[in-house]
Amino acid sequence: VALDYLAVGIDPAKSTILIQSQIPELAELTFYYLNLVTVARLERNPTVKAEIVQRGFERDIPAGFLTYPASQTADITAFKASIVPVGEDQIPMIEQCNEIVRKFNRTYGQDKDILVECKAVVPEVGRLPGIDGRAKMSKSLGNTINLGATADDIRAAVKQVYTDPLHLKVSDPGHLEGNVAFLYLDAFDTDKEALAEMKAHYVRGGLGDSIVKKRLEGILQDMLAPIRARREELAKDKGHVLQILKEGTFKAREVAAQTMDEVRKALGLSYF
Amino acid sequence: VALDYLAVGIDPAKSTILIQSQIPELAELTFYYLNLVTVARLERNPTVKAEIVQRGFERDIPAGFLTYPASQTADITAFKASIVPVGEDQIPMIEQCNEIVRKFNRTYGQDKDILVECKAVVPEVGRLPGIDGRAKMSKSLGNTINLGATADDIRAAVKQVYTDPLHLKVSDPGHLEGNVAFLYLDAFDTDKEALAEMKAHYVRGGLGDSIVKKRLEGILQDMLAPIRARREELAKDKGHVLQILKEGTFKAREVAAQTMDEVRKALGLSYF
Repeated sequence: VALDYLAVGIDPAKSTILIQSQIPELAELTFYYLNLVTVARLERNPTVKAEIVQRGFERDIPAGFLTYPASQTADITAFKASIVPVGEDQIPMIEQCNEIVRKFNRTYGQDKDILVECKAVVPEVGRLPGIDGRAKMSKSLGNTINLGATADDIRAAVKQVYTDPLHLKVSDPGHLEGNVAFLYLDAFDTDKEALAEMKAHYVRGGLGDSIVKKRLEGILQDMLAPIRARREELAKDKGHVLQILKEGTFKAREVAAQTMDEVRKALGLSYF
Repeated sequence: VALDYLAVGIDPAKSTILIQSQIPELAELTFYYLNLVTVARLERNPTVKAEIVQRGFERDIPAGFLTYPASQTADITAFKASIVPVGEDQIPMIEQCNEIVRKFNRTYGQDKDILVECKAVVPEVGRLPGIDGRAKMSKSLGNTINLGATADDIRAAVKQVYTDPLHLKVSDPGHLEGNVAFLYLDAFDTDKEALAEMKAHYVRGGLGDSIVKKRLEGILQDMLAPIRARREELAKDKGHVLQILKEGTFKAREVAAQTMDEVRKALGLSYF
């Protein structure tokens, strides 16, 4: 994951990259936030509900899974984040975070707010579906195109991309709804005019999937080649990457410890 | 609570007294243990179920309340406790703790067990009911006799102690079941022979509640007077008590940090 972050251009000089488990304050904040949210409310969280179905947990949900929104709230509030870039499926998580923030401030805030509410920032394309058309790319579902994918991986993945099952002959009119090839083109094709023409052609019939996929493959190959190259370069020096993570984590921990201190004081749990 | 502990004779030179919230490792352990217990299992915990009813939570249980057994497991396992003195109502908590310990060791133990199973040690009288006969003494129910109670408090409390509602006249036969006066005598009267005689007399009739309560009051006054005196003496120097708590907490934290370190390594979460 760290290689992915760095390869796409996240700059550790501007953005702090951290390893969650190495910041115990995040677990400690989670522990206290668990008192500010009811089991019934957690069970109503749409993201949690969807993932319970996807993972097949049914009645045997691990408690850590149900309470995950409290942990995510810790990850956000420890750094007093005001903006959180997320996929659209994560919006309910952000809403629940802000509910906990408000409850904390109302209950323990005394004369000033301690925690900060945040705003979800969702990109124009709010979520990339899997290549099989399922709602979400997921490693365990095997429906992803990884950032480090080889040229062959990309070619193979694009071949499998779900399009329009009713579009049997080139001359048939095609459909754009749920057509992953066009959803990906919407996300990555910068020539919007050519894309609009292609869509119109596809809909009225006479444009084969292979042409659409060829365009998509070219765009993905062009986009991912430099990322892959940077990723391979970075992977040669894992010590350097670990050093970046270490520095980021230590820097982040100072901020989290400061928030934890304020939270502990507000809760009346500062003794020594 | 610290004054109570010290006043009854818990010796900080032998027993480490700590403040839970000042040991962040306990929250961190809880955070990981939440992944080792299902929501369904927590909902089946009899102690949790009973307290949900007693506190009137119904559907709106705070998540921190439902997940409390995981926190208690952290409190026990952080110190690798092998023996835990508890009231009988806490036995299900200890069972759940050991389930988590076994699951942890099985899942992450590799070649050796990291966490230690514990044994509940319940005293002969497993639990003192409230003076009103309810299952549990509870400050919020106002049915307690505190360790620091004054002589007047004790007198007033004993007057209210629930006995046998069918024992209307002194000559009536009395009942011992659920009779709190006799339950307390069972716990605190060291003259078992005299107590057995008194019980027999009560059951066959002719012994008034006032005689029973007088004996009980005398025993409680004798037992609590030196505790109250020590408590008052200790309360004069709160700095000293805080110092005991501080030393105990720091000592305990070293042990908890060591366990946390082993747990983090077992989980594969040691990076730097």
